[in-house]
Amino acid sequence: MNQHSDPAGNDGRPPVSSTRGRIISAAVELFAEQGFDATSVNQVVARASVAKGALYHHFSSKDDLLFEVYRELVDRQLSGLHDIQRRGLSPAETLRALILDLVCTTAEKAAEAKVFFREGHRLSDANQQRTRRARREMHDAVLGLVAAAQAGGEFSAVASPEMVTFTLFGVINELPVWYQPDGRKRPADIAEELSALLLAALRPAPTAAEPST
Amino acid sequence: MNQHSDPAGNDGRPPVSSTRGRIISAAVELFAEQGFDATSVNQVVARASVAKGALYHHFSSKDDLLFEVYRELVDRQLSGLHDIQRRGLSPAETLRALILDLVCTTAEKAAEAKVFFREGHRLSDANQQRTRRARREMHDAVLGLVAAAQAGGEFSAVASPEMVTFTLFGVINELPVWYQPDGRKRPADIAEELSALLLAALRPAPTAAEPST
Repeated sequence: MNQHSDPAGNDGRPPVSSTRGRIISAAVELFAEQGFDATSVNQVVARASVAKGALYHHFSSKDDLLFEVYRELVDRQLSGLHDIQRRGLSPAETLRALILDLVCTTAEKAAEAKVFFREGHRLSDANQQRTRRARREMHDAVLGLVAAAQAGGEFSAVASPEMVTFTLFGVINELPVWYQPDGRKRPADIAEELSALLLAALRPAPTAAEPST
Repeated sequence: MNQHSDPAGNDGRPPVSSTRGRIISAAVELFAEQGFDATSVNQVVARASVAKGALYHHFSSKDDLLFEVYRELVDRQLSGLHDIQRRGLSPAETLRALILDLVCTTAEKAAEAKVFFREGHRLSDANQQRTRRARREMHDAVLGLVAAAQAGGEFSAVASPEMVTFTLFGVINELPVWYQPDGRKRPADIAEELSALLLAALRPAPTAAEPST
């Protein structure tokens, strides 16, 4: 089974009732409770109520399990990014759509994102490189969007594309810390506020009256 | 010795040549390299080249050591906040001064901040409560500043005070991940860009011509 994409339009996440999904859920719970280092493969299989062989059928190691927690989230976000890029929207509409996608996917997977951002540095060097590549693709897409729109005059050059990008991902990466699934604000509300804030900052200065020629 | 404040105006951080400072530096290095859980008190005293008794003279436990790493940074930031609040600046100037202080202190203590934001959830409940209180004080100060300035019309109500606050601390808390001490941008440059971005977003809409009465 191809775990990376689903031509039927499914977002690629296994239902939690699947063995693989149950193992990931159990691992995320245990990594959150006691940390990656302190969690053993035996504890994960006990929490997930699966045989050890089932875990090794899906994951080569505990490192691989933590990597997959991240990969599923970032693959979904990269796929969202590519969909948005294909729509041919204005820079402001592209940024708004991207923020909506990033906030909603991160809020839905807040437990996974929190575990990854705490424990991701415990991954093997090879898996850290793979996660850095995926993050860089997201980062570079936003950076390129902002730089092009600033060059074209659609966005104000109030701050560098790097600072705009770090600001956006700063909020997204911290969201799992403060987001409350049962809180007053829904992910779409949060995305709308964040879009309004960043787009207000990037709004080009009103054009001065054209000099007569 | 009172470790919490220094009436002479010293920022309270011990020089690294002090025993206490050497222990903290060694602990930060080890927590960063191998994680809080995997680090023993024996490893910290070996790395710091101090006797175990010296560690227990300054810190009651490994938990206390991690807590102190955070407390020194946040105490300094709270003290900076109180200094700025006493200056009676406009809301925009207050926010600018606060961002400068937060960026500079976080950049200077990037290793400590990174370790704390990864490992802080491993603290005892009592120490987690203390760190939450200190963070809440910083958070509430920014929230209150933005709310009052929005109510007074000095800031635009483009986004809620909560979202502005989460955005600011999102950038600050992520800064240790991307900040490069030997990079092109100095902390003051980063602060200036971030201030420009947030203050542009919060700039009140130009007043419409007053209706004649």
